[in-house]
Amino acid sequence: MDINEKYMKMAIEEAKKGMGYTSPNPMVGCVIVKDGKVLEKACHERYGEYHAERNALLRCKEDVKDATLYVTLEPCCHTGKTPPCTDIIIEKGIKKVYVGCLDVNPLVAGKGIQKLKDNGIEVVSGILEKECEELNEIFNFYIKNKFPFVAVKYAMTLDGKIATKTNDSKWITNEKSRNYVHGLRKKYSAILVGINTVLSDDPMLNCRIEENVDPVRIILDSNLRIPMDSNIVNTAKDIKTYVVMEKSVEKLYNDKIECLEKAGINIMKCAEKNGHIDLEELLKNLGEIKIDSVLVEGGSNVIKSFLDNGFVNRIYAFIAPKLTIGDDGIGPVAGCGIKDMKDSLVLKDVEMKRFDDDIMITGGLNVYRNN
Amino acid sequence: MDINEKYMKMAIEEAKKGMGYTSPNPMVGCVIVKDGKVLEKACHERYGEYHAERNALLRCKEDVKDATLYVTLEPCCHTGKTPPCTDIIIEKGIKKVYVGCLDVNPLVAGKGIQKLKDNGIEVVSGILEKECEELNEIFNFYIKNKFPFVAVKYAMTLDGKIATKTNDSKWITNEKSRNYVHGLRKKYSAILVGINTVLSDDPMLNCRIEENVDPVRIILDSNLRIPMDSNIVNTAKDIKTYVVMEKSVEKLYNDKIECLEKAGINIMKCAEKNGHIDLEELLKNLGEIKIDSVLVEGGSNVIKSFLDNGFVNRIYAFIAPKLTIGDDGIGPVAGCGIKDMKDSLVLKDVEMKRFDDDIMITGGLNVYRNN
Repeated sequence: MDINEKYMKMAIEEAKKGMGYTSPNPMVGCVIVKDGKVLEKACHERYGEYHAERNALLRCKEDVKDATLYVTLEPCCHTGKTPPCTDIIIEKGIKKVYVGCLDVNPLVAGKGIQKLKDNGIEVVSGILEKECEELNEIFNFYIKNKFPFVAVKYAMTLDGKIATKTNDSKWITNEKSRNYVHGLRKKYSAILVGINTVLSDDPMLNCRIEENVDPVRIILDSNLRIPMDSNIVNTAKDIKTYVVMEKSVEKLYNDKIECLEKAGINIMKCAEKNGHIDLEELLKNLGEIKIDSVLVEGGSNVIKSFLDNGFVNRIYAFIAPKLTIGDDGIGPVAGCGIKDMKDSLVLKDVEMKRFDDDIMITGGLNVYRNN
Repeated sequence: MDINEKYMKMAIEEAKKGMGYTSPNPMVGCVIVKDGKVLEKACHERYGEYHAERNALLRCKEDVKDATLYVTLEPCCHTGKTPPCTDIIIEKGIKKVYVGCLDVNPLVAGKGIQKLKDNGIEVVSGILEKECEELNEIFNFYIKNKFPFVAVKYAMTLDGKIATKTNDSKWITNEKSRNYVHGLRKKYSAILVGINTVLSDDPMLNCRIEENVDPVRIILDSNLRIPMDSNIVNTAKDIKTYVVMEKSVEKLYNDKIECLEKAGINIMKCAEKNGHIDLEELLKNLGEIKIDSVLVEGGSNVIKSFLDNGFVNRIYAFIAPKLTIGDDGIGPVAGCGIKDMKDSLVLKDVEMKRFDDDIMITGGLNVYRNN
């Protein structure tokens, strides 16, 4: 790793400090270096507030003239909620800028770098580009598609079961794995499960590693079967929750809708498609209310629907080294699969992370509607 | 890692050179060091030939008097096919011996170390003990139980399937993973599959990474359904093969038995138990013909039988990052599983090995009949 990569890595780590707070803005980190010394580092801390570059430049107590600036994402050159970052970089006399990756936002998209160059600043881009892009895979996808980035998460045994035949799944993975899932919940704007998961597990679906970063909860529940005394309903005034029902049956459930709304639940009505909530309409609706990312946590029928519709951008599979010693438990993906192994859905850019004896395998999938 | 561990590690690597050739003897490696210089290293190369210590001491061209000897397994003190190693160690004037682990063979079991000590040699044992024991987990189990060490190997998708609903499994894992399996086949004395695997895949079940180290092939085939034109039968004159049938139906298949024996197949007859070959009798028979280890490669019914009977010492699960997108494929373990997740069979001493985007997870299981 050369010295520029080292500083970019530092900027990436800085960027991650904004995780859970910047959505629907990207996470960005910035490091200012002069004469081999780090003068300041900062991130984009919270949606609506200053960007990483402005934070670093304003906070720096030393003279930044002729300094080098490392930033994970191309500096913006338009006025949004805050003034353009290119202006302050030029104004402060920065000599050279290292950029991780370009901003896919059509308002920026190369124009930020051009503006710096036009003002005599040397710009090098593409430093740790892949890592910098990955930092904002959600942002990049959402800004292009106005459609949330969808990840599927499941935990299974070494013989491929997410629950036993009696639907028992407590616990497959160890505490470290489960803590990591709470970290993921911080990264994603929303967490989605089917009603069967609510009925069988009565989950909270919150983020237990930090206060006030709970994702929005989305329950697919065509016929409003959610119990009024479930943990989800009981905490709906504290954690934003959508229950998604089928538009066509609305009239049958007027009373329940009223009760749920009184309890703090937001009812979202979607069309039906092949006996399920129309996921395309759902995701479009979510995109419109600025939900840039959804973590689908099951059950296996819900995962199947998202996969069959080609809406899944990423899989997180946790595997624990234990066996249910049979084939009558529940697999991670329900329903009718492929005939030929060559037609399997192959993950790309696979990464693995070990949590003691558990392993997490993650990789990307191509979303059909955008190919 | 301290200096003694470094030399023991070298001895372990040396020991592995004997893999596939020493059975039913253990793999053993030896390193001779004097004044910080490695004078010689050697392994037990082949069953019936000299042990590692004798090889190293006889081959060393320099003066080994007062040298230090590192050996992965306690030196033997009895005369078997070759003279006791303790004698030559004493005779050559070795000053100090570092031992990896004790020999569980009741003919040795601490007596080797005692004899060295009685002759004024300083002995330190337990250097990288776990690694040294693992080197010979097969040998240690077999010598204690007279029953082969059983490992189960399977390859599955990230949604837990070893084949699609049409029984297609070619290929789940990548070439590197499959090569590693051929390495395992070298480590195990026998490879075992059920007749359904033969009927559906017509496999060779040989070791393709090296000549003349093919394991013995064992086919569980209660009713002698194996086709005369299968690859197994066609190569039975070159690779030792047992077809295991049910004793009770022997008379029905006299002609087929004769044909198979003419083709070079060994017919083994076992009792029936719960509609299958009695695995306990089978393993006892295999132990008697000096098969110290069996790699069970499927299918899922055979794996289920071995697990249910508590005969499995180790699992090797290969996982590839691809999805069959359904639950109608074939899981690694057939039949009726546990009800409560807390009753799952948990692997111990879990290790993982990555082969590009595939991962292999391996760990031990307690064999019931020996607990």
